[in-house]
Amino acid sequence: MAQPLITLLTDFGTADYFVGAMKGVILSTCPSANIVDITHEVPPQDIQCAAFILLAAYKSFPVGTIHVAVVDPGVGSTRRGIVGKCAKQIFVGPDNGIFNYVFEREAPAEVFQIQNEQFFRRPVSPTFHGRDIFAPVAAALANGVVATQLGLEISDWVQLEPLAPVRQEGTIEGRILHIDRFGNCITNLKDADVTEEMKANGALLINGRRIGSFRKFFAEKETTNDGGLFAITGSAGFLEIAAQNVSAAEILKAEVGQLVLFGEKD
Amino acid sequence: MAQPLITLLTDFGTADYFVGAMKGVILSTCPSANIVDITHEVPPQDIQCAAFILLAAYKSFPVGTIHVAVVDPGVGSTRRGIVGKCAKQIFVGPDNGIFNYVFEREAPAEVFQIQNEQFFRRPVSPTFHGRDIFAPVAAALANGVVATQLGLEISDWVQLEPLAPVRQEGTIEGRILHIDRFGNCITNLKDADVTEEMKANGALLINGRRIGSFRKFFAEKETTNDGGLFAITGSAGFLEIAAQNVSAAEILKAEVGQLVLFGEKD
Amino acid sequence: MAQPLITLLTDFGTADYFVGAMKGVILSTCPSANIVDITHEVPPQDIQCAAFILLAAYKSFPVGTIHVAVVDPGVGSTRRGIVGKCAKQIFVGPDNGIFNYVFEREAPAEVFQIQNEQFFRRPVSPTFHGRDIFAPVAAALANGVVATQLGLEISDWVQLEPLAPVRQEGTIEGRILHIDRFGNCITNLKDADVTEEMKANGALLINGRRIGSFRKFFAEKETTNDGGLFAITGSAGFLEIAAQNVSAAEILKAEVGQLVLFGEKD
Repeated sequence: MAQPLITLLTDFGTADYFVGAMKGVILSTCPSANIVDITHEVPPQDIQCAAFILLAAYKSFPVGTIHVAVVDPGVGSTRRGIVGKCAKQIFVGPDNGIFNYVFEREAPAEVFQIQNEQFFRRPVSPTFHGRDIFAPVAAALANGVVATQLGLEISDWVQLEPLAPVRQEGTIEGRILHIDRFGNCITNLKDADVTEEMKANGALLINGRRIGSFRKFFAEKETTNDGGLFAITGSAGFLEIAAQNVSAAEILKAEVGQLVLFGEKD
Repeated sequence: MAQPLITLLTDFGTADYFVGAMKGVILSTCPSANIVDITHEVPPQDIQCAAFILLAAYKSFPVGTIHVAVVDPGVGSTRRGIVGKCAKQIFVGPDNGIFNYVFEREAPAEVFQIQNEQFFRRPVSPTFHGRDIFAPVAAALANGVVATQLGLEISDWVQLEPLAPVRQEGTIEGRILHIDRFGNCITNLKDADVTEEMKANGALLINGRRIGSFRKFFAEKETTNDGGLFAITGSAGFLEIAAQNVSAAEILKAEVGQLVLFGEKD
Repeated sequence: MAQPLITLLTDFGTADYFVGAMKGVILSTCPSANIVDITHEVPPQDIQCAAFILLAAYKSFPVGTIHVAVVDPGVGSTRRGIVGKCAKQIFVGPDNGIFNYVFEREAPAEVFQIQNEQFFRRPVSPTFHGRDIFAPVAAALANGVVATQLGLEISDWVQLEPLAPVRQEGTIEGRILHIDRFGNCITNLKDADVTEEMKANGALLINGRRIGSFRKFFAEKETTNDGGLFAITGSAGFLEIAAQNVSAAEILKAEVGQLVLFGEKD
């Protein structure tokens, strides 16, 4: 039988004992768990960034994977903990929107509040629910505990701004979801939103720049003149604005959350 | 049967081949080992920092866990290698104090010098005992080798400054054990040292500042005026001095090892 | 039976979803795989650095290990993917020289082009072959697929500058292969090139400096005066130029690839 697979996604960094402690707790409850780090370098308290990274990663994991995501500025307060089920995977963490991009794409999600304290590590530190609640709950799920044993189903979980772009007459209103370490600006526009035909006759508009060059891969020869900027469908399935060997985000002074329009060329 | 669990804690960083090589050696000797990183970002040669991180992490791991800790400025010299047993876990590394906070808390520890070269990787590099001695010895222990096979028991292992604070009349003399990435200053004072009643009538004193605000969790509303500073029992079980969304260490110009007094309010 | 062992070595960093996605894909195809990170912090697109790290690490891993190395500036272009077999291990990645130091040392290597698309993840992103080609191919190999099922054997794989130094009359012409995080300058000179007898009568020459002090370990007392610089056989088996507690690379203004001569003292 395959080992249960548990992923971790946090803003804890890797210099301290936090991640190690979570893994120790998981393996104390479920010794056969296979634990995979997605990342621990989410900028502190940046829920939106964590939500994007999880969205970009979850589809690469097998059925039954349990994802634990802890970016948790409200730890110790009254914010709820949740377990969500969708896409044949399970999501464990705080109810602050961190799972919302996945829940939106894979709707309907079944979401349960984490209430049953018998699955917690004791005592529960008010500053480290990652170790004392989310890790042992994930391990319990890996051991075969079902979500209904954890608490009541809820439907009012915290929302983020919707993932899908807004279609207007003749244009599509998107936004920057994420800027990666290379400075690529990942938008919320997908190939289904901007077809090949539309690309041939249109361009992305951002901060006064018009980007009409669409590439298939990074090392492709430049075909149009956009100051080195081009758009490309990235590995997360979204249109990205990139530049050869330099940071597109710096050239554009782009920021996460800002508007990106797709419009017909005039 | 569960996989043997081996943790790694070093100052090797993760940019080079050092950590990968240790894991390869462990899995060459004990293919079923489950290896968990605690951290590899201890500041170079900072034994005290590693000792604290191990102290904060080991209790989250199950019985039988083997912890390998390598912060080893004396590598290749005459410093000894040791295997320590306490708290139903095993500790493998150089005899330079790195395990001392755990040995002190969990006393008595049984400590053995690593002498039996049959368990070493050959040839032993004089600059990388992590790969050539500590990793294969840990793997041998995971395979069922017992500590008495490795070498003689010793009682004169290297000590660090004691973990426990010093009680004076009316005050407790503690110190800063660790400053984490958020700038929280973790002291060596525990709830057993500073009770709720004492907190109600006392304050921490550090670098001329008096901190009398004690919180249960970070996002709690401020109740007293200490320039934003407050104390909180952190997830490692010690009183920490923190500040909301800023670095307490910077505000206080605090340093690891320095004095923190707890005294009655006057 | 032991778990199949797969290592990862990339320039993806650990802040994004890239490494997690590769692991998810591997575990989707081969749930029993044991995945070990060598490093993900190779400087972006630095093939030579990745080639050195792999050279320094592979011998620590057991027979049958599958190494996936992805530093891949040509991703999406016509550069080939390859699987190489040598030293009873398997190497999977782009054909850009990344495996060449290993292939040269362990010659002859058997190398196969990756052509059989049935083992790829679909659709193949033109920007992320690590996830969509190399990870699933490695997982297929871990499941027992043999290299001849992947594609035709080739003999014209991309070469790097040869690993071995050049012997001239009375001198050996080496170069700096790698500079590690401590500033140690790792040359391509081995103990077999520079014997103990030669060390007694010779010195390394680099950027106008003469380094005739040879140590066994870092903490050794200084015996000759070379401005604190000394040479030492490092844990990768090469002569390194080091300095006590400071960066030799900074003192020497040394760069990767530059000339290091060994010559007799005059």
